[in-house]
Amino acid sequence: MSSIFETGLEPTGANHSPLSPVDFIARTADVYPEYPAVIHGGIRRNWRETYQRCRRLASALAGKGVRQGDTVAAMLPNIPQMLECHFGVPMLGAVLNALNTRLDAEAIAFMLEHGEAKVLIVDREFGEVVAQALSQLANPPLVIDVDDPEYGQGSAISELDYEDFLNEGCADFDWHLPADEWQAISLNYTSGTTGNPKGVVYHHRGAYENALGNQAVWAMGQHPVYLWTLPMFHCNGWCFPWTVTAFAGTHVCLRKIDPEKILQLIAEHGVTHMCGAPIVLNTLLGASEAAKSGFSHSVQAMTAGAAPPAKVIEAIEAMGIQVTHVYGLTEVYGPVTVCAWKSEWDDLPVEERAALKARQGVRYQTLAGLMVGDSETMAPVPRDGRTIGEIFLRGNTVMKGYLKNPKATAEAFRGGWFHSGDLAVWHPDGYVEIKDRLKDIIISGGENISTIEVEDALYRHPDVLEAAVVARPDEKWGETPCAFVTLKPGVPEVGEQEIIDFCRQRLAKFKLPKTVVFTDLPKTSTGKVQKFVLRDRAKEL
Amino acid sequence: MSSIFETGLEPTGANHSPLSPVDFIARTADVYPEYPAVIHGGIRRNWRETYQRCRRLASALAGKGVRQGDTVAAMLPNIPQMLECHFGVPMLGAVLNALNTRLDAEAIAFMLEHGEAKVLIVDREFGEVVAQALSQLANPPLVIDVDDPEYGQGSAISELDYEDFLNEGCADFDWHLPADEWQAISLNYTSGTTGNPKGVVYHHRGAYENALGNQAVWAMGQHPVYLWTLPMFHCNGWCFPWTVTAFAGTHVCLRKIDPEKILQLIAEHGVTHMCGAPIVLNTLLGASEAAKSGFSHSVQAMTAGAAPPAKVIEAIEAMGIQVTHVYGLTEVYGPVTVCAWKSEWDDLPVEERAALKARQGVRYQTLAGLMVGDSETMAPVPRDGRTIGEIFLRGNTVMKGYLKNPKATAEAFRGGWFHSGDLAVWHPDGYVEIKDRLKDIIISGGENISTIEVEDALYRHPDVLEAAVVARPDEKWGETPCAFVTLKPGVPEVGEQEIIDFCRQRLAKFKLPKTVVFTDLPKTSTGKVQKFVLRDRAKEL
Repeated sequence: MSSIFETGLEPTGANHSPLSPVDFIARTADVYPEYPAVIHGGIRRNWRETYQRCRRLASALAGKGVRQGDTVAAMLPNIPQMLECHFGVPMLGAVLNALNTRLDAEAIAFMLEHGEAKVLIVDREFGEVVAQALSQLANPPLVIDVDDPEYGQGSAISELDYEDFLNEGCADFDWHLPADEWQAISLNYTSGTTGNPKGVVYHHRGAYENALGNQAVWAMGQHPVYLWTLPMFHCNGWCFPWTVTAFAGTHVCLRKIDPEKILQLIAEHGVTHMCGAPIVLNTLLGASEAAKSGFSHSVQAMTAGAAPPAKVIEAIEAMGIQVTHVYGLTEVYGPVTVCAWKSEWDDLPVEERAALKARQGVRYQTLAGLMVGDSETMAPVPRDGRTIGEIFLRGNTVMKGYLKNPKATAEAFRGGWFHSGDLAVWHPDGYVEIKDRLKDIIISGGENISTIEVEDALYRHPDVLEAAVVARPDEKWGETPCAFVTLKPGVPEVGEQEIIDFCRQRLAKFKLPKTVVFTDLPKTSTGKVQKFVLRDRAKEL
Repeated sequence: MSSIFETGLEPTGANHSPLSPVDFIARTADVYPEYPAVIHGGIRRNWRETYQRCRRLASALAGKGVRQGDTVAAMLPNIPQMLECHFGVPMLGAVLNALNTRLDAEAIAFMLEHGEAKVLIVDREFGEVVAQALSQLANPPLVIDVDDPEYGQGSAISELDYEDFLNEGCADFDWHLPADEWQAISLNYTSGTTGNPKGVVYHHRGAYENALGNQAVWAMGQHPVYLWTLPMFHCNGWCFPWTVTAFAGTHVCLRKIDPEKILQLIAEHGVTHMCGAPIVLNTLLGASEAAKSGFSHSVQAMTAGAAPPAKVIEAIEAMGIQVTHVYGLTEVYGPVTVCAWKSEWDDLPVEERAALKARQGVRYQTLAGLMVGDSETMAPVPRDGRTIGEIFLRGNTVMKGYLKNPKATAEAFRGGWFHSGDLAVWHPDGYVEIKDRLKDIIISGGENISTIEVEDALYRHPDVLEAAVVARPDEKWGETPCAFVTLKPGVPEVGEQEIIDFCRQRLAKFKLPKTVVFTDLPKTSTGKVQKFVLRDRAKEL
């Protein structure tokens, strides 16, 4: 359809620019060159220095022949070099493949080969496992060693040291935004609880959008002091390398989760924001009283996965840490929904607040659509808080697709929505709440049983350390819940019946586990329970 | 260039959605339906109601045949109906042409004809002038009357009343985002100090970006309470109809600037944010002491044009109002640069703070480029705070172009930048500071003289109400400064020499006005001084 508003009004260089989070560092370094950018152990760098290091990295990589569309892999903890990769690599139009540092050699080899990495930047801590991985490759990438003084161990596996490499590059390297905002910016492999991991491709447009979306839902303001308790290799740190940079904040680095150190950094640097799995918040509660009372300012913590239970929320808030619950997946650049808090909930009893906060919530301003619907027909479920359906997501912060896997991409995007594989209910107020993974839900006598709900009941038993529930085939009911339970070390023996009776206080009869197995739980390298292994075991019981 | 990241990874409905600020109201109405959206006199509407009214408007307009690319004009003060137009009109892909309510019949007729308005929504206050305009048109638009109870005067000029019209539409009208984010969302005519006004076209992408950019630079947070002291017809209220809605804020409406009422609304509704020309802040200082001390919370005020002088900033801040200085033009969706404040400036003397704040500053995160350069060669000027050049802007929040004027569009975008026509210096810290309009600057004996600088000196004279300085042709010097001055009412007579001598304290000798004329200043309907009229008069002196 043509109108007077379509003629002579085409995009030009003056009025159209590709959306890209890489531009944020140029602005921040220009406006706030002297402001603190990075704190890591004894290292302090401002935004001028950090921007120069990113440009040096881009320049040096270009010198090694890295071009648009080439993959640069990184096996790094949350250190300044990892932040630099988030800018220096895409400055060339190259694609950052951040590897999970807990991966084994086989998985690393698979990803380097599948992602066709031209360069691999690796911290000495992972030198050994990476060397093993490289030995399996026909065409290994160029390897660059990072020798972090905060680690101080390990030995080089390459001739090329990161700091020397930077010195090969120019601090005023003339980089460019991508010609097209749809160009890839990063590659993140799923954890692959079954089969080979899939390579999730992000683009500049989506990374820009989610970076701004993070700030929009969290109201971070200018100059946040952000503590890196979330791995930057995890969905590019939920896009926070770009968010924090856009708002001229300070990245406080952290090689590994250590509750005493986290609390000390919060106190020392006035940390205002951090993210992480609920387990990170949990570990803080076990810290010394001195550490816990070492700061008096308010800290915002964003958490995803499962929301912490009421007791944890209460204890965390008593420390001055406010929890925001978000939800997302690797396929959607990290979080894309938020349990948007309402002030009228502030005065509710903590149990009720925790129940409200446990919900995955509503879409970010930067996500186009969130729906709970039937997995097959994709018809929306009623907003009744009871009917279970699959979470569907749609918008600019949904991945570009799976690398070299058009079939999986087409399946994931069937019907114009991303199929999350997460089952949820839709509450009357429009907030969604996850009940289970699609492949985990148990159907017993025609009724859905949420394994998460049964696991919640099990976790309340004082002697239970970990629990996972899967379906066990049953002639009469089709399936019944089967619980795998790890007890806390040193507790007295607990019997199957005691566990089932304990659950009876909280669960409807048909939801009670019919079988309880005491055992350790099989996990992926990222710490996710491998339910497919447990399902196989349940079948054989 | 093709890479593995380009194949099988095309945009689909699942992972690509047009950027549009219209989507914000859908989210906000869904998440915060009961939260206050609009306050206007005795009217209180929440987000559910406001969204329903916008959908009714879209539906009713569709019923009258309004389609994508059609123009809907509005001659409305800052009332709820004007806010509704900012959503209801673009829900159809139609284009909102908000008219300056101070325009005369001739200008209105020109815009309605040039913009090809199909519909005109008009407040009774402007019925008479609009009726005159309509009588000049061969094909007048469909007219819809707004009868605002807060006005309560005037009479209808159409059979069609806005409220009745809304009732023709469906509250659950199924609207759609535009297929392409480059589609036009609004049409805003420049004030046209010379010749016919130009029709500046905005698109959905740019409006979305500047709406988020406003929040990014101002850190507004969730649920701002926003007072409408800036006309919504002015660059679509700098995109704040969309910003405030995106963050589920409250729009506090205001038909006209009235200092007592502004302060009363601030106190009554806990206003957190407002925008406006410096004159708005000035008028507040003249309010009663009771009104000025009626609130104790902090208010953020964004101002553009010229920054207020030190005394005004001091007095305004003493009232609890923090001033943020921004810069923009109709062609760039309102503000696109901000004098980003640094905390290390907080403790400087107020004169120094005012001088820093008077600068137009640095680009928004959502603007791709800001440069000061030679108007012809477009070579950047040095960042020395002294060399004058033109401000160039580039990015997604630069207009789509001028309607039906490809020549003016091409000129404005020559060389891949928008030519602002504003002359500025570039400070060593990267902040720009306007010195003059390109066509106003005086060149005397080969030296640039900023008319703004001379006017600043004149304004400091206690008896001067208004002043404007233009070039007067001079045989020896080429040009010399000629001052037109309006004295405050009731002050004793002041002589030409006294004014020149007064300026001598603050200006270099070559910058002193050689001529001073005491007179009223000719102005446009928007209150801008018509310097081309004064230049003609100066030639004839």
